Amino acid sequence: MITIADIWAARPIVMEAAIRTPLVRLQLPEAPAHSAEIYLKLENLQPIGSFKLRGAQNALRSAPPGTLARGVLVASAGNMAQGVAYVAQRLGVRATIIAPDTAPETKQRAVERLGGEFVRVPRERWWRTFQERTFPGYEERAFVHAFDDDLVMAGNGTIGLEILEDLPDVDTIVVPFGGGGLAAGIATATRALKPATRVFAAEVATAAPVSASFAAGEATQVPFEPSFVDGIGSTAVFPRMWELASNLLDGALVASVDEAKAAVRLLAERQRIIAEGAAACAVAVALAGRAGGGKVVCIISGGNIDFEVLREILAGV
Amino acid sequence: MITIADIWAARPIVMEAAIRTPLVRLQLPEAPAHSAEIYLKLENLQPIGSFKLRGAQNALRSAPPGTLARGVLVASAGNMAQGVAYVAQRLGVRATIIAPDTAPETKQRAVERLGGEFVRVPRERWWRTFQERTFPGYEERAFVHAFDDDLVMAGNGTIGLEILEDLPDVDTIVVPFGGGGLAAGIATATRALKPATRVFAAEVATAAPVSASFAAGEATQVPFEPSFVDGIGSTAVFPRMWELASNLLDGALVASVDEAKAAVRLLAERQRIIAEGAAACAVAVALAGRAGGGKVVCIISGGNIDFEVLREILAGV
Repeated sequence: MITIADIWAARPIVMEAAIRTPLVRLQLPEAPAHSAEIYLKLENLQPIGSFKLRGAQNALRSAPPGTLARGVLVASAGNMAQGVAYVAQRLGVRATIIAPDTAPETKQRAVERLGGEFVRVPRERWWRTFQERTFPGYEERAFVHAFDDDLVMAGNGTIGLEILEDLPDVDTIVVPFGGGGLAAGIATATRALKPATRVFAAEVATAAPVSASFAAGEATQVPFEPSFVDGIGSTAVFPRMWELASNLLDGALVASVDEAKAAVRLLAERQRIIAEGAAACAVAVALAGRAGGGKVVCIISGGNIDFEVLREILAGV
Repeated sequence: MITIADIWAARPIVMEAAIRTPLVRLQLPEAPAHSAEIYLKLENLQPIGSFKLRGAQNALRSAPPGTLARGVLVASAGNMAQGVAYVAQRLGVRATIIAPDTAPETKQRAVERLGGEFVRVPRERWWRTFQERTFPGYEERAFVHAFDDDLVMAGNGTIGLEILEDLPDVDTIVVPFGGGGLAAGIATATRALKPATRVFAAEVATAAPVSASFAAGEATQVPFEPSFVDGIGSTAVFPRMWELASNLLDGALVASVDEAKAAVRLLAERQRIIAEGAAACAVAVALAGRAGGGKVVCIISGGNIDFEVLREILAGV
């Protein structure tokens, strides 16, 4: 498990590449007076449009230079791919991304614009890379794990430090839960510095393993149904990540796909930001009152939403 | 003319209601190495989605309490209406907005959500309100001018202070020019604190009176053609605003409607923000190299774009 010291150590390193994102209050003048005050931590404004830059930067900059010089390897379908490619380009090292063959063209273009190599493999082969932490032909590369990596989690934890500085009396933080590295990092920071703060995972109803695992009291498999919410949600939580989540989090809150769509629309209308489905789930559960009252911070993990989906959602405004 | 002292005085007042917006670098890894570094001042993240909040807050909070208690009156088709309604609601005073009868429904709803009264009048009657600074039946109200008001301009000028703090070696600032109050405020700050910084107005080709006036050396009428860029562009610059502009600005740069659309798309794709057409004009001229090289800051004045237009633009991605 990482500690607050790891997060403090990560901060100056993270800040070499990432911006200190603003925490803004969601404008809901029509909401009843007793409703939660909802705040948004705008990680979608990071250079690659996602918080993943923080972990990527901490992991790469902390790797031994000798290892780094041989290039880096990461398995990712989305945001972490861009995070690693961005940092690698800044550091002048080669980056290769192992991606599932279903990854959208736009993600490949974004990685290639940053000088990264994008290798498509069958989905099961891609998934195995997370366990094996290497890939044939790339054995000499420094492998960066998208979430189950202490340096990545410590980098993510810097978001928690910023929230506590900007809103010291925060009651609750709601964090989209994909691999779990974002929630673990943020919860580690708040547990150390302000233990009364509640931290919840946000999930989408079509794939909510954390919620099911909390209900069962142990890591539990769930069915998976694809939806526009593609940054979070799988059939199971990785064993070590469930151990962290069950120790660090207060529970998991679930948004329906329709609630997530309404939240994307609201964020565009009121805050003029483009939020990805995962981030919208965090806002949706807060809007529904599931995160309780008081001051509730939702992590806008990123803005990587398919523009066709966004167009369809905006049509409803 | 306002001075830097007015802007310093406005700052603590403005900050009671507005956020200190981030200045982020536009990510263009594919751009040639000699291209300008483009930075975005994200005023679209303000509570009402626009910089107008700054001027409205400074004007209302600086009005004599006795006057303010009788309510405020503003003529506006768009962002200033929301700015004044927002501040008035916070201060507990009545706000009435005189709007042209062509104003979109969404603007009316946004004002009414904030407790403001929305009065539709014929366009010529509305326009006359800017000159007369009152409206029959509302003579007792404190009138806030959307741009030609020293307190409003001083409030806008706080954006200049923030830019110089965040990017002390800024070379050029590009400011969407509607009434001219934003450009005048920012240029007043930079002229006082860093005179070498160049400040340009950004206009849309379909209605570019500042550019024509600079070319002619005097205030000049131009034709007007409607476009999706609705926050800037009219047939003429107000005489006092031309006097300020000709003294304070280095010139005006013009974007075509297609260039502005491409910039809206780029800002959504790379920065995950929704920018209005006026803001996109500033980015478009910087991208085209018209603002020169070095560090170029574009003011993202707001995010109030019609969602049907946004959908059409995103379809091109």
